[in-house]
Amino acid sequence: MPAPTLTDIVTARSRISDMVHRTPLARSFALSRFMDADIRLKLECFQDTRAFKVRGAANAILSQQEKGPLESLVTYSTGNHGRATAYIATRLGIPATVCMSHATTEDKQAALAEMGADVRLVGSSQDEAHDLALKLAEEGMTFVDPINDPASTAGHGTIGLEIMEDFETVDTVVVPVSGGALISGIAIAIKASMPSVRIVGVSMENGAAMYQSLEAGRPILVEEVEGLADCLQGGITLDNTHTFATVRDLVDDFVLVSEDEIARAMAEGMHKERLILEGAGATPIAAVMHRERSMFGDNIALVASGGNAETQSVYDVAAVHRQAMETLMGSAAR
Amino acid sequence: MPAPTLTDIVTARSRISDMVHRTPLARSFALSRFMDADIRLKLECFQDTRAFKVRGAANAILSQQEKGPLESLVTYSTGNHGRATAYIATRLGIPATVCMSHATTEDKQAALAEMGADVRLVGSSQDEAHDLALKLAEEGMTFVDPINDPASTAGHGTIGLEIMEDFETVDTVVVPVSGGALISGIAIAIKASMPSVRIVGVSMENGAAMYQSLEAGRPILVEEVEGLADCLQGGITLDNTHTFATVRDLVDDFVLVSEDEIARAMAEGMHKERLILEGAGATPIAAVMHRERSMFGDNIALVASGGNAETQSVYDVAAVHRQAMETLMGSAAR
Repeated sequence: MPAPTLTDIVTARSRISDMVHRTPLARSFALSRFMDADIRLKLECFQDTRAFKVRGAANAILSQQEKGPLESLVTYSTGNHGRATAYIATRLGIPATVCMSHATTEDKQAALAEMGADVRLVGSSQDEAHDLALKLAEEGMTFVDPINDPASTAGHGTIGLEIMEDFETVDTVVVPVSGGALISGIAIAIKASMPSVRIVGVSMENGAAMYQSLEAGRPILVEEVEGLADCLQGGITLDNTHTFATVRDLVDDFVLVSEDEIARAMAEGMHKERLILEGAGATPIAAVMHRERSMFGDNIALVASGGNAETQSVYDVAAVHRQAMETLMGSAAR
Repeated sequence: MPAPTLTDIVTARSRISDMVHRTPLARSFALSRFMDADIRLKLECFQDTRAFKVRGAANAILSQQEKGPLESLVTYSTGNHGRATAYIATRLGIPATVCMSHATTEDKQAALAEMGADVRLVGSSQDEAHDLALKLAEEGMTFVDPINDPASTAGHGTIGLEIMEDFETVDTVVVPVSGGALISGIAIAIKASMPSVRIVGVSMENGAAMYQSLEAGRPILVEEVEGLADCLQGGITLDNTHTFATVRDLVDDFVLVSEDEIARAMAEGMHKERLILEGAGATPIAAVMHRERSMFGDNIALVASGGNAETQSVYDVAAVHRQAMETLMGSAAR
């Protein structure tokens, strides 16, 4: 399965338009002042499911449906892809099963069940959840793959189209990286028409499967480590079909951020931007707050990919790290 | 000055399109389940200034500019209109002065100064801030009126156009009411093409100037009372030009909500929707949570008008009232 093309992404856009929001690219006054740059946040945290993954799931499921009626869907997920699949399935009236590891928080499991999904818990890692989903797919369910389906990647790529339209002078786009479908879609969309725009990926230091695979020169398995950005957990699969090569070929820079850096970014989001961000969704903010100014241009789009963490835990992290964030940012008021 | 027409609102839309976001109309799964209805939130809390007022300010200022160059702007505001004026002024390179009462929080004053405005503090009520702004306008500054300028109302009306496009089956729109420009604009836009859609206004019980004026049959002065929805403070002015008559003629129902009801709505926003809402922005949620089911239809749009409260104070309110909210909503998880 090759990576999607710009044409696939443009087609995806009209296919999914009833299922997703064209989210605002909101100015961050605090980060812009701090960086002496024009910094804007792509608010994917306000898709209906509170994360970008609905774009890919919608395109994957609707593409399959164009080929024939779907009786049932199955996927595996740390939460956001599962939510997205359950949401689209409910909108279309198709039953959906979501396989998750026992390590997933109860909050996320409950949210999925409330979204109408049949939740199946298995093992302690994403890989085991993956295996169960594949088994159910062999038994007849339609698999909605979060990493290896070019249709899903094309759906995510629609974010790139919207960023280019809303921010004509954009020179850098910073994107969280887990399995790589989000950044692959965005990079394909943007590099096709604005090749000089820099695409910067961000993962957390612990368990950065894509980063370590790039270092190794091939997809490798990486041990999962608990952390704030647990949405970025999960490997890129050894049989990775296109995200590894796309990230290798199109992504200009790759940043790893620490737990403390993510925590300060969550505090920035909460107190300066009025955003409740999950750790993964805050990693681009963490990158611009803590990495060399020279890594970024003057017109920067940060993809705030999701907001599905439990609010109290986000607030607690933000409260503990607020002072450090404000000291770094150099101003107490927004 | 008559109220704006649908034509004025449609014209405003193209005039302001570079200055405002077409915000998502996001589904609320929690409220929809609670009400057995399709409930969606118009996320005006994610305009760049974190409140809807940028729509009116942009249309008012750009309309004035079409008549000739502007040297300086002046307005009065409890915060959001001032922020909006300062923001648009900065984008256009025009100096702006904002008159506020000493009763306004320091957080809001600082935010305005950071947005580039010259803040002038006066007296203890909005009426005094209003008088100072008028005086500066007589001395030559261009006045940006939040209540009595049909151009501002037309700008707010663009929200109504977007709701109708995104939610074709909408039957009820619930809108916070202070000076009445927001609900007037929305009501004019919607009643012109979908007259059967019910428009419901919401104010807080204490100091509801528009509600009490409607009861009196004419604009009256109302004492300002401190409360969670302090953005809804301020009168509708005795020389009200069009919002009083528009609300009287086009608004179908009017709800007053208590402090506790607003607090539970802020908790709902925080913990179920992942939204940091100021009290005023949460009043439509408070209305559907606490008023007769029969007051609303089955397809309800709530205008989440702003999110400019200090985050910690919003979180504290949400934490105190979370249990009461969850008991009412009948479910602990989102």
